[in-house]
Amino acid sequence: MPEIDAEAEVNARHSEKMKKIKAARDRMMEGKTEEKGLVIVHTGKGKGKSSSGFGMILRCIAHQMPCAVVQFIKGNWVTGEAQMIQGRFAGECRFFISGEGFTWETQDRERDIAAARNGWEIAKAQILDPEVQFVLLDEINIALRNDYLDIDEVVDFLLHEKPRMTHVCLTGRNARPELIEAADLVTEMTLIKHPFRDGVKAQKGVEF
Amino acid sequence: MPEIDAEAEVNARHSEKMKKIKAARDRMMEGKTEEKGLVIVHTGKGKGKSSSGFGMILRCIAHQMPCAVVQFIKGNWVTGEAQMIQGRFAGECRFFISGEGFTWETQDRERDIAAARNGWEIAKAQILDPEVQFVLLDEINIALRNDYLDIDEVVDFLLHEKPRMTHVCLTGRNARPELIEAADLVTEMTLIKHPFRDGVKAQKGVEF
Repeated sequence: MPEIDAEAEVNARHSEKMKKIKAARDRMMEGKTEEKGLVIVHTGKGKGKSSSGFGMILRCIAHQMPCAVVQFIKGNWVTGEAQMIQGRFAGECRFFISGEGFTWETQDRERDIAAARNGWEIAKAQILDPEVQFVLLDEINIALRNDYLDIDEVVDFLLHEKPRMTHVCLTGRNARPELIEAADLVTEMTLIKHPFRDGVKAQKGVEF
Repeated sequence: MPEIDAEAEVNARHSEKMKKIKAARDRMMEGKTEEKGLVIVHTGKGKGKSSSGFGMILRCIAHQMPCAVVQFIKGNWVTGEAQMIQGRFAGECRFFISGEGFTWETQDRERDIAAARNGWEIAKAQILDPEVQFVLLDEINIALRNDYLDIDEVVDFLLHEKPRMTHVCLTGRNARPELIEAADLVTEMTLIKHPFRDGVKAQKGVEF
């Protein structure tokens, strides 16, 4: 029965290939022994920058690692995350809202700067708090890009004052090159297709 | 006091610019009136594909939208998400694990195919269930890329049998072009920097 033989051969070849991949992967992982708090950046025009930050926050909650969120720019959006975290996880995750919405909503640069600076003061206190193991600075990149916060000050703090084991995740479009340079883990979310282009509005569960 | 004048001018110009952006954005959003269930794809080599899927699942939980997760390939990883969702949100989010780990761990193509097919049967049932509003098919792209599942069958189901208002999010590297073509919202997570390269191992809260 030649068909069965052919199938068996495909399976055998597959098994051989996978054994090699596994061996290579095991060797690679053996060299990875260091643990340290990471500076993580999610940038780009695609969706998922904040969502994956919140995905990590929820991993922390699952592991009972105390964590904190500071929302910088989307402050007055009553998002699902804000409602949920404030309502349900108050004991595990601290949630702070700074800023009063996207800048084109406020049209007041001084108010935006004050909100961003206020957010950064909160952020520093949370990062320095030895209890807190993971801090999400949501949309801080917009405040940095608009010079509401000083990039050198932020990078210097992350490199020299952040406790060694604390993870910090910074999200938002147009991450500054200085921040990318300083970060350990950087992902760019690239927009391939977006339904807004076809007249579909922002929807519950997906965008907020 | 010329410095104050200069500062006032910057602020006035900023306000003018932001008013224009707000007007343009308001016009754009007026055209966005349609609501429909989206086919969402997260692909690419960067981090955040699964995390942002779980971020959306948790938005759904926050909004009390019933949802479901089917994990395809990472089956035997006891992830934070699995523990948390199974433990804490059992009433709101159904959680299914199919597959027995990444393929290089099993080295058994037939078992992988059986696991993938089993996951797809569960996935279809969850998508067709009128109660469920959002379904995350985590790492299904790996099963599709390895031909453990038939891409035409999956795309045909998403386009013609998925209830109109149900969102489905499919994650994993190397999304098939047919799936990208069929999807409404596609994000590619692009790896810019990864700490594994510097010998840092996968860490609680970040990777699992």
